[in-house]
Amino acid sequence: MKIQQPKEKRVGDSVAEMTQIVLPNDTNMLGHLLGGTLMHWIDLVGAVVANRHCRKLVVTAAMEGLDFHSPIRLGHLAILKGRIHCVGTSSMEVGVEVYSEDTLSGEHFHTSSAILTYVAVDALGRPSPVPGLIVTGDEESIRFREAMDRRENRLKRLRKDQSP
Amino acid sequence: MKIQQPKEKRVGDSVAEMTQIVLPNDTNMLGHLLGGTLMHWIDLVGAVVANRHCRKLVVTAAMEGLDFHSPIRLGHLAILKGRIHCVGTSSMEVGVEVYSEDTLSGEHFHTSSAILTYVAVDALGRPSPVPGLIVTGDEESIRFREAMDRRENRLKRLRKDQSP
Amino acid sequence: MKIQQPKEKRVGDSVAEMTQIVLPNDTNMLGHLLGGTLMHWIDLVGAVVANRHCRKLVVTAAMEGLDFHSPIRLGHLAILKGRIHCVGTSSMEVGVEVYSEDTLSGEHFHTSSAILTYVAVDALGRPSPVPGLIVTGDEESIRFREAMDRRENRLKRLRKDQSP
Amino acid sequence: MKIQQPKEKRVGDSVAEMTQIVLPNDTNMLGHLLGGTLMHWIDLVGAVVANRHCRKLVVTAAMEGLDFHSPIRLGHLAILKGRIHCVGTSSMEVGVEVYSEDTLSGEHFHTSSAILTYVAVDALGRPSPVPGLIVTGDEESIRFREAMDRRENRLKRLRKDQSP
Amino acid sequence: MKIQQPKEKRVGDSVAEMTQIVLPNDTNMLGHLLGGTLMHWIDLVGAVVANRHCRKLVVTAAMEGLDFHSPIRLGHLAILKGRIHCVGTSSMEVGVEVYSEDTLSGEHFHTSSAILTYVAVDALGRPSPVPGLIVTGDEESIRFREAMDRRENRLKRLRKDQSP
Amino acid sequence: MKIQQPKEKRVGDSVAEMTQIVLPNDTNMLGHLLGGTLMHWIDLVGAVVANRHCRKLVVTAAMEGLDFHSPIRLGHLAILKGRIHCVGTSSMEVGVEVYSEDTLSGEHFHTSSAILTYVAVDALGRPSPVPGLIVTGDEESIRFREAMDRRENRLKRLRKDQSP
Repeated sequence: MKIQQPKEKRVGDSVAEMTQIVLPNDTNMLGHLLGGTLMHWIDLVGAVVANRHCRKLVVTAAMEGLDFHSPIRLGHLAILKGRIHCVGTSSMEVGVEVYSEDTLSGEHFHTSSAILTYVAVDALGRPSPVPGLIVTGDEESIRFREAMDRRENRLKRLRKDQSP
Repeated sequence: MKIQQPKEKRVGDSVAEMTQIVLPNDTNMLGHLLGGTLMHWIDLVGAVVANRHCRKLVVTAAMEGLDFHSPIRLGHLAILKGRIHCVGTSSMEVGVEVYSEDTLSGEHFHTSSAILTYVAVDALGRPSPVPGLIVTGDEESIRFREAMDRRENRLKRLRKDQSP
Repeated sequence: MKIQQPKEKRVGDSVAEMTQIVLPNDTNMLGHLLGGTLMHWIDLVGAVVANRHCRKLVVTAAMEGLDFHSPIRLGHLAILKGRIHCVGTSSMEVGVEVYSEDTLSGEHFHTSSAILTYVAVDALGRPSPVPGLIVTGDEESIRFREAMDRRENRLKRLRKDQSP
Repeated sequence: MKIQQPKEKRVGDSVAEMTQIVLPNDTNMLGHLLGGTLMHWIDLVGAVVANRHCRKLVVTAAMEGLDFHSPIRLGHLAILKGRIHCVGTSSMEVGVEVYSEDTLSGEHFHTSSAILTYVAVDALGRPSPVPGLIVTGDEESIRFREAMDRRENRLKRLRKDQSP
Repeated sequence: MKIQQPKEKRVGDSVAEMTQIVLPNDTNMLGHLLGGTLMHWIDLVGAVVANRHCRKLVVTAAMEGLDFHSPIRLGHLAILKGRIHCVGTSSMEVGVEVYSEDTLSGEHFHTSSAILTYVAVDALGRPSPVPGLIVTGDEESIRFREAMDRRENRLKRLRKDQSP
Repeated sequence: MKIQQPKEKRVGDSVAEMTQIVLPNDTNMLGHLLGGTLMHWIDLVGAVVANRHCRKLVVTAAMEGLDFHSPIRLGHLAILKGRIHCVGTSSMEVGVEVYSEDTLSGEHFHTSSAILTYVAVDALGRPSPVPGLIVTGDEESIRFREAMDRRENRLKRLRKDQSP
């Protein structure tokens, strides 16, 4: 399955992984990682994936609904893994999975699944075309199709936002 | 219109407003505010609203889909206004509107509309009941009903996430 | 009562409010907000007010004596409200009131009253004229007159500093 | 000249010096150090001096009027020197002189003179006695007397603040 | 090849990778990543590796000589990969390789090779035993032997430091 | 003893001292200063010394082996003293001694001795010549000779790194 555009890339070409230690200033009164700090890290990882796919400056255009299933504690690790799902003309959808790692027991928990849309831009901030995406295997194809559906919903949402 | 619970509060009792100046470290190579930094500020304002409603510790449970309509530039202001939409037993939905202010021209732009769910917790991190919400007027009622629909969708989404 | 200058503005045109959550890194060993961090926030709010009045770059020129009446604790809120008092050719005096909010009890305390002077500057950092200020009502007039007295003292202080 | 209290110390026993490099996030749009960041550093140096005199936890109680004579630029150094002026039962007045150093030319400028009052506290935050101060020579004596005058003014100001 | 100790682990059990985007506040006047910020990130990655090997609190005990071969620029990525080399009773030697990634061209450069020693500690900060390390293959064996030599030199250096 | 180059300077012309208070975000779960944060501060002090000697932009080229003898605790002070050891054509070796100060007891401990190499660069980042160093007295001469030995080792190490 292929989307026609110059310099196509594979999903594996732009994966990214980030490990963060939860330090005191990242936590609330319970010693749990602040939701907003986690969103900040999710956005950084997603931006690295989008950038690796297009090798241009990228800006965050949207974030899909996001649930926080379990807290990440002070001194533990947040592990974030990003992967591109689908591309438009200048937009890219990226998924970021978040896991916590208990530094003493070694236990892992799945904490959140985030989906973000980035737009490639030129030096003046105008949208700029991105390479096509080569999708292989069932898993990538399913993710691709789900992402295309979300993209349509997102474009509808934007049109609704712009009409008073 | 009333939801039955002890110490009910009005929407106006918990509104919050935050003004942030975009400093160099908050920006990307284009001099635009990082999406993740804005999400972090949105979460802080939302948490203040939720906390003011319940006067307990609160944790972020979910964020709805979020679009970034226009960039906020280095040196400009981000103005964030939060307001409670609806409450469950221990959860609260909060809306945060984001505006940018051009510090030289004074122009304002609507940048994002975020919707977050917070859960009140006790000192051990267990869910804890929140006061009811008194909703008055058409606008608050519409927001309340839309929020209740989202809440149902969110609970469905969570059940789906938990079944492999 | 009016001060003659182009594009006069009212006091209400430039008011600003900021809400900050006291996070671990903002506190000393007692879990109290650091005095210096509060001064930093006071300066940011004051700069927003001065900027809104003149819509030019502003630099901090002076801060009047400042007392810290009661500590603001970890996890509580600092609420800062800024308002312009009077203007000179290129200088503006701004007052910032600081309140703490106990996030669990909802109690408020008045923590500090700060008075700062900002100077509007052009892109090269040279002083630049600011709009006049329209002062209405007794309260604004009293504040205006007190500010003019402080301005005179400040200019005297500066002249004294410059003579060895 | 001596003030009667246990474990008296000399002025030289508690002097402190801090050097800071002005990094991008410390600057405004002109590339000048933010006034609030400088106040934050002034408070840190002053707290070190007060702590060295009393060897107890200290909290900032007040800051006297403060002028910013010249900007400190991005990449340059801020050099802060603190020295104790006088002591009360549990309060200490500290002076902090700020100099800028141009890293390329080596030129120094005197930027600000700050005067702060700290209070020694015990682990519960209650005022706690401080050692007396041994003042020697004309310069230290003059500073001591001026500080005692300011202390009286400050106490008057506080009494006025507390009466509505 | 095996070192006798309870719960031995393999080198692959504790590898860690971190990706960091170079933001404005991490850079000097040339827009290059500050050496000290890179050292800070190296130490975080090394601590994650050491922690994953022993699942105890770890403290940094030493860093070997470190060269910075080429600068990492503002907006580019720093990629850090850590791997355990050898273990003592309570100490662990970890190697961290640093690569830069040009976000626009995709080019990679090897920037630094760091070697750090961590000590596992209990809740009171006292040294605590660590699991043995299973070393397999020529590469891991060479690294192990080189690390044991460095460890001996380091212990000599410490003894020399402690004798006046 | 003199090294021939324009505008020679003495060791005392470029000494630098920095005092840092250990705040919550600088510490690990034991309340000890993070090794990486200390390395960051060491690099800042060393850069100030190198900059004061050459009055040009400087970049960190290398750090020698570094041991951490004793932890610095939350709320205590880290005192860093930097001094130039020797100079090459465009490189400078700087030593930084680190001491901790217990803020309540006043006790001092020697924590680390760091040795760093900086290179002076022009606005394009190319190596740029530095003034000669005037070394006087036995202590400065010994340090100078030891530094010259390390420099030779470092250059050998670099040549080895560059050959695969």
